[in-house]
Amino acid sequence: MPQHVVVIGAVALGPKSACRFKRLEPDSKVTMIDKSDIISYGGCGIPYYVSGEVSEAMQLRTTTFHMLRDEKFFADCKGVDVQALTEAVRIDRAAKKVHVRRVDTGGQAVLDYDRLVLATGGRPRRLNLPGEDLPGVHYVSSPHDAVSIRQAVTNGEVEKAVVVGAGFIGLEMAEAFADMWGIETTVIEIEDQIMPRYISPVLARMGQTHMEDNGVSFRLGQTVLRLEGDERVRRVVTGKGSLDADLVIISAGVIPNSELAVQAGLSVSERGGIKVDRTMRTSDPDIFAGGDCVEIMNQITGQPFYLPMGSMANRQGRVIGTNLAGGKAEFDGAVGTYVVKIFEKSLCGAGLCLSGAERFGFEAMSVLLVQLDRAHFYPEKELMTLELVVEKKTRRVLGIQGFGSKGDATVGRINTVSAMLRHRPTIADLSNLEMAYSPPFSSAVDILNTIGNMAENALDGKNRGFWPNAFPRLWEDRDSGECFFLDCREAADAKHHLEAHPEHWHNIPQGDIAKRLKDIPRDRTVVLMCNTGGRSYEAQITLDHHGFDKVLNLHGGLAALKAWGFEI
Amino acid sequence: MPQHVVVIGAVALGPKSACRFKRLEPDSKVTMIDKSDIISYGGCGIPYYVSGEVSEAMQLRTTTFHMLRDEKFFADCKGVDVQALTEAVRIDRAAKKVHVRRVDTGGQAVLDYDRLVLATGGRPRRLNLPGEDLPGVHYVSSPHDAVSIRQAVTNGEVEKAVVVGAGFIGLEMAEAFADMWGIETTVIEIEDQIMPRYISPVLARMGQTHMEDNGVSFRLGQTVLRLEGDERVRRVVTGKGSLDADLVIISAGVIPNSELAVQAGLSVSERGGIKVDRTMRTSDPDIFAGGDCVEIMNQITGQPFYLPMGSMANRQGRVIGTNLAGGKAEFDGAVGTYVVKIFEKSLCGAGLCLSGAERFGFEAMSVLLVQLDRAHFYPEKELMTLELVVEKKTRRVLGIQGFGSKGDATVGRINTVSAMLRHRPTIADLSNLEMAYSPPFSSAVDILNTIGNMAENALDGKNRGFWPNAFPRLWEDRDSGECFFLDCREAADAKHHLEAHPEHWHNIPQGDIAKRLKDIPRDRTVVLMCNTGGRSYEAQITLDHHGFDKVLNLHGGLAALKAWGFEI
Repeated sequence: MPQHVVVIGAVALGPKSACRFKRLEPDSKVTMIDKSDIISYGGCGIPYYVSGEVSEAMQLRTTTFHMLRDEKFFADCKGVDVQALTEAVRIDRAAKKVHVRRVDTGGQAVLDYDRLVLATGGRPRRLNLPGEDLPGVHYVSSPHDAVSIRQAVTNGEVEKAVVVGAGFIGLEMAEAFADMWGIETTVIEIEDQIMPRYISPVLARMGQTHMEDNGVSFRLGQTVLRLEGDERVRRVVTGKGSLDADLVIISAGVIPNSELAVQAGLSVSERGGIKVDRTMRTSDPDIFAGGDCVEIMNQITGQPFYLPMGSMANRQGRVIGTNLAGGKAEFDGAVGTYVVKIFEKSLCGAGLCLSGAERFGFEAMSVLLVQLDRAHFYPEKELMTLELVVEKKTRRVLGIQGFGSKGDATVGRINTVSAMLRHRPTIADLSNLEMAYSPPFSSAVDILNTIGNMAENALDGKNRGFWPNAFPRLWEDRDSGECFFLDCREAADAKHHLEAHPEHWHNIPQGDIAKRLKDIPRDRTVVLMCNTGGRSYEAQITLDHHGFDKVLNLHGGLAALKAWGFEI
Repeated sequence: MPQHVVVIGAVALGPKSACRFKRLEPDSKVTMIDKSDIISYGGCGIPYYVSGEVSEAMQLRTTTFHMLRDEKFFADCKGVDVQALTEAVRIDRAAKKVHVRRVDTGGQAVLDYDRLVLATGGRPRRLNLPGEDLPGVHYVSSPHDAVSIRQAVTNGEVEKAVVVGAGFIGLEMAEAFADMWGIETTVIEIEDQIMPRYISPVLARMGQTHMEDNGVSFRLGQTVLRLEGDERVRRVVTGKGSLDADLVIISAGVIPNSELAVQAGLSVSERGGIKVDRTMRTSDPDIFAGGDCVEIMNQITGQPFYLPMGSMANRQGRVIGTNLAGGKAEFDGAVGTYVVKIFEKSLCGAGLCLSGAERFGFEAMSVLLVQLDRAHFYPEKELMTLELVVEKKTRRVLGIQGFGSKGDATVGRINTVSAMLRHRPTIADLSNLEMAYSPPFSSAVDILNTIGNMAENALDGKNRGFWPNAFPRLWEDRDSGECFFLDCREAADAKHHLEAHPEHWHNIPQGDIAKRLKDIPRDRTVVLMCNTGGRSYEAQITLDHHGFDKVLNLHGGLAALKAWGFEI
């Protein structure tokens, strides 16, 4: 029997559920409302519009075949009635009515529904700082924000930009300002690393170093106290000083828009996410919800979490569309998979990072691996860095993070592990993982195989190393003689460091170590180093075998150290 | 207790198992023999050496840090004794001895072993044709082949090359000749498509069309009868004519080298692959085997199959190395995952293609999808084509194949599905798959999500289409009036075709169809077309809803038709 479905919110989940439902039940009627005048846009594209890579803001609102996704498009092409500039004020669940108000005229109306979809989305978190309402302070959410930011930039008003918050959007916006417009850009982050909670301090620092090499400055571990200005923002004041700024971006997270659900008496979590089951139903079986206003299940921790991403909204929207039509689709949660491009590199991950795993009570460790992203003899190749997070006792893989080229190689590995994570893989599953091999695409032993192997060797106590972030302290203390720095590359490769530090840098190629044991002190900590950590691991095995008991090798090698930002 | 391990074969699996074992048991001794003078090389790199992208043949034999992997390297860096130019003649299992012979001197010796590893590899299949031994006829196997082929090319001896066999190596060699050296290159294949048994005729034809656009010719469905020449090869004669050739490559598959295993009385399959269990042990528990000389388990069919790939050998080699040292590693088979670069594109896949699925008794179907490989508003993007093979009754995913850019985007999707396949995913698992989303890397609904959705719609009878290979017959028969060709793109997009074929080409934009039903005949088959198949599917739903009962939409749209090689 035809039904009337009302959808509140018309950005991502709303349109997806509406259109899917209409394709399954063309006889039914869908009314989709949104308080904004602009609907159905790709908010994730805003940084690329600000940078100019996307030339017109309209492109964020068109289909692949260049049709504007406006009210007329939804009416003609999708059979969905859209009422823009229409805000839902109240839901009367008993009467199955939504009370709405026109944003422009203030006119009120009531919509009857058989089923209701809450696609109310999220909003940028405000910091409630003095000066936050000054002109020139922007959030990154709607195409309106995008247009006003780009106008400021193209008008030449912006010489200095400050981005508050070093999450995905903050980093993308910083790149847009610095790379395409040459604006002096500083990112301020309250935590002491970029992308906190997503990536380890070491990978974060690699990303930060790359962005610094491309002209972006960072102030980490600083809290913004206030924004100062006159007719517009002029200055950002933090607990550790102040910074001039013509434009400020606040990218400090997203808050679910769940007020309507609360008003209607639906179950909403303490953090504000609407609670839904696997069919995306709220606590009222006739009301579905999804996208940036809901909490979903984390398939690794088994706990609900909040993951406001356009891709989630689209997948959940289809599930809702199917279920509105009487189907039995399920959305069974997520592991948290993401990627962000920063200049010529990408940072990406799936599942938990080490600190996240520990926060959820896992006794975990992680290994760091640097390897070429394809056959070493193939002319085009780049180093990729991966970190694998493993539960110690069970050897279960809990997450993976990567730093690599801006192409699809690194994210391809992350997506592969993402697909495995819900099956509770162990490191042996990575060692045995079947990756397509051909020299232009991978090495015969793919980096995912190697990192599985490396985790096994580390957990078995065979590969004992330290990370790049631990090196500077050892090196700065080199005069104490506590460490013996042993470069086990070939002589030609070690020459530069040897000449620069003749007293502290030693070189025995890995293949000569067994013959030159007498040249290596047994009473000092032997710090083994090579390009990426492969030969230093072999050297460590040789020294272990000959009874040296204070041996460590530098994981990721001198390549990781350099990417991390330390030059010897 | 230290043991003596003998490894027969020193290319990929041999060195990997030897080195892994030595790292675990440094006190034990490993002797690795090989009948060739060249050991431990990356045979998969040969096409890139022939093309010149790899400048020196030596590069296929070096480590990532540019050390030559010769006998001295294995002795010094890995603690493994290598005897090159040494052939295993006979295994005496009762006495645990291998009888060997020096290839250069003919000198004989006997090696005692505690454990033995058969890493005897495979050899190029000979066609046993008249003229196959003529100078100028080459196989692609060892660095010796590589050097002689490239010498012929660089000496200017080669104006016309013929490649016999359109598998991975044949296509890579054809690209090397045509792309880098401008040689007139023809590929002859006995089957009527390239990459038979790996990919469907439609994807194969897309790959073929792309190679033809780049100057390679194909003769499909032709059997080579003989090679003719004088002091060197001059001509290839097939059942359908003859072709001049200065150089002929025979790339007609690989045969496992299992004669030694047969002689020793080990279990060997009818097809010649040595049989091994999950620990890579042969029927003799003290003898391991792996790499191109063994059969492995196909995780989809549950049947043994033969998959001679360097990546397999490396993974199996590590398992053997671990188990030689008393470990409990397992290699549990493969699904068959591959990629091949052809000029600016790649062809890749995991699991079964449709014909393969049918051959193994699955009642299967497949869907074809064309979609941009990242956000449509992002400036750099390319169309990707995927084919998903599904068991009808269970909706289990049996395989996936792709044709896309030469970058890592397509193979990244294939690797993701490869990792899932051993878990027996259904199409719902693809619909819900969590792919990292950011506009430079994917669209909000990733192509893997979409192809899962598309398979569901096809299996539910909602999306009824035909494939590009069925179009030419319909179009060539257009005067019969049987079909009504309805382009449902916007008028501006349809203009070109409409003007070229005013009598046969019709255009109603998808959004106008519901209003213009009277312009569409109910007594003819309505053939719906758009760019990639999305709008034609929506149009089909509209016509279905209004009672049209002869409606089909072109899967992959006009983009797939063009890639397939048909221009209207």
